[in-house]
Amino acid sequence: MGEKVGQQSVSFSQPPVITSSAAIVGPEEGAGPLAQYFDWVIDDPLFGEKSWEKAECKMLEESGKLALKKINLQTQDADLFLAGDLLNQIVSANYSARGLEIPFFGLFGACSTFVEAMLLASMLVDGGFARCVLLASSSHHLTAERQFRFPVEQGVQRPATGQWTATASGALVVEAQGDGPRIVCGTIGKVVDMGITDMNNMGAAMAPAAADTLLTHFEDTGTNPDSYDLIVTGDLGKVGQKLLIELLKKRGCDPGDKLRDCGLMFYDTEKQDIHAGGSGCGCSAAVFSGYFYSELKEQRYKNILLMATGALMSPITCQQGESIPAIAHAVVVSS
Amino acid sequence: MGEKVGQQSVSFSQPPVITSSAAIVGPEEGAGPLAQYFDWVIDDPLFGEKSWEKAECKMLEESGKLALKKINLQTQDADLFLAGDLLNQIVSANYSARGLEIPFFGLFGACSTFVEAMLLASMLVDGGFARCVLLASSSHHLTAERQFRFPVEQGVQRPATGQWTATASGALVVEAQGDGPRIVCGTIGKVVDMGITDMNNMGAAMAPAAADTLLTHFEDTGTNPDSYDLIVTGDLGKVGQKLLIELLKKRGCDPGDKLRDCGLMFYDTEKQDIHAGGSGCGCSAAVFSGYFYSELKEQRYKNILLMATGALMSPITCQQGESIPAIAHAVVVSS
Repeated sequence: MGEKVGQQSVSFSQPPVITSSAAIVGPEEGAGPLAQYFDWVIDDPLFGEKSWEKAECKMLEESGKLALKKINLQTQDADLFLAGDLLNQIVSANYSARGLEIPFFGLFGACSTFVEAMLLASMLVDGGFARCVLLASSSHHLTAERQFRFPVEQGVQRPATGQWTATASGALVVEAQGDGPRIVCGTIGKVVDMGITDMNNMGAAMAPAAADTLLTHFEDTGTNPDSYDLIVTGDLGKVGQKLLIELLKKRGCDPGDKLRDCGLMFYDTEKQDIHAGGSGCGCSAAVFSGYFYSELKEQRYKNILLMATGALMSPITCQQGESIPAIAHAVVVSS
Repeated sequence: MGEKVGQQSVSFSQPPVITSSAAIVGPEEGAGPLAQYFDWVIDDPLFGEKSWEKAECKMLEESGKLALKKINLQTQDADLFLAGDLLNQIVSANYSARGLEIPFFGLFGACSTFVEAMLLASMLVDGGFARCVLLASSSHHLTAERQFRFPVEQGVQRPATGQWTATASGALVVEAQGDGPRIVCGTIGKVVDMGITDMNNMGAAMAPAAADTLLTHFEDTGTNPDSYDLIVTGDLGKVGQKLLIELLKKRGCDPGDKLRDCGLMFYDTEKQDIHAGGSGCGCSAAVFSGYFYSELKEQRYKNILLMATGALMSPITCQQGESIPAIAHAVVVSS
């Protein structure tokens, strides 16, 4: 039996275990500093398929299968599959669920989806409703660009605040029992919207949601930045990270040197042309499932707070003059 | 502490209570036989807004507020808001969550979203992670048509198998304690795809998923059609309902006279021009929140099995030659 803690947080009676993980990344991501931590670097953005959408779906499904295979589980051993992605109607998740044939809940939280899934998986496992949950999320640079902005063939110049949607997927197996890092608590975000309307400045749209969830987390759980080895944001990028630090300091919270951002760690931001940093549902998914999972398992980190942020932007509402709502969800993972 | 039952079902230690409900419907739905059961019939599909998308968002948010207000709760009394809709990036849910300021998880399950939310709400409440969950889903005829098919102004003729996306929203409050019908168990669906590629024949795409979930539910829980007063499907329509009966009979299960379909009950199918029946996330949401909730509360039904079906169709994957995956989730609600 779990527990609600404070305003927006939850804790677990038996912290669920992340027993396995897998990450598949695209060529740009495979050229970044974390390459060695990923299970599979694909050279071809089509991944042998006829469309980028089919490639993204394959990437998501394969990362799920791989996470299960690493601990000798079959798809039928998983009670539940939780997944989402950036595409309209979350097609990558739906078609992956078709291939995996595991009871399925589709989620949409833009780039916060991975941690939304981690929170739900933990609650359902700790609540006794599932023994083994597979969760995954993905994004693909070429499917996202043409859906949200412009087809890349068009060669539209990107502003410096723009972020690079990562071609990547990450998957975790969360179980009631087993070996591995544990999800000890989490904080469910509220939608925050400070009026940003520029779809090429997601960092600015997401930073206030990140600050809101982080400060609420500290209050709910009686912790502070020193309670964690690292505070890892999903994909705020350079712009969003700078704003987050400003917002936190204004509220009397100094994160010191604890902050990291998956969108900035994923690439060599000096050499690779990714503007303000990486983004996409696959960004925090692959960086956590690849790099952080491994580091936690090796006890190089004792505990990290992972907070994925989502810019819940929509081309149609932006065209109708709406600003971009954002959300951030957080989980604490201990080795 | 809940329990997994059989392959895909869950039961609750303390069945969560649906303490309140609200439903708002559009003009066509307000002209149907269930009109008296809805809290609000809007005459203007714009609902006083400047776009249909904004109208749908307002409808969803207002139904959530109304469900809380009926039992004298404020938005801050809800621990969690679970919502989804048909629009790209589930914008109605996201913008409603911005207005409501309740910790939020966005869901996408096409027309199965309402029961996806009921299942998750029940598990999170029974698991101890939330005392009070607000859940809602919506659809709008004019936003869905232009997103999935053609703008209605174009006057494209609809085939007889086509379904009418309902302009409607429904919301429920699910609590650990209180008065009202209880959610006693549920079955989580798998994605099933029998190769239907016609976006104007969703009933045929969804019927196999409905049969799969229903038969699994009976097996998991040791029940049969006679165990329930009614088996209510979300929006199979005429085509899908007929196929469901065929599929069930082939597998040795005769549903007798137990089947009802929200998509068929919502309208006068003889007089109203809705072709094969209603559909959309708002269809089962409003018919359950309006009609069935009231009938359960008045003890006119003892227990019903509500199964919402979702055609997880996407214009882009259909253009790429993919078939339409479908899913069905079920819950049992007892007075």
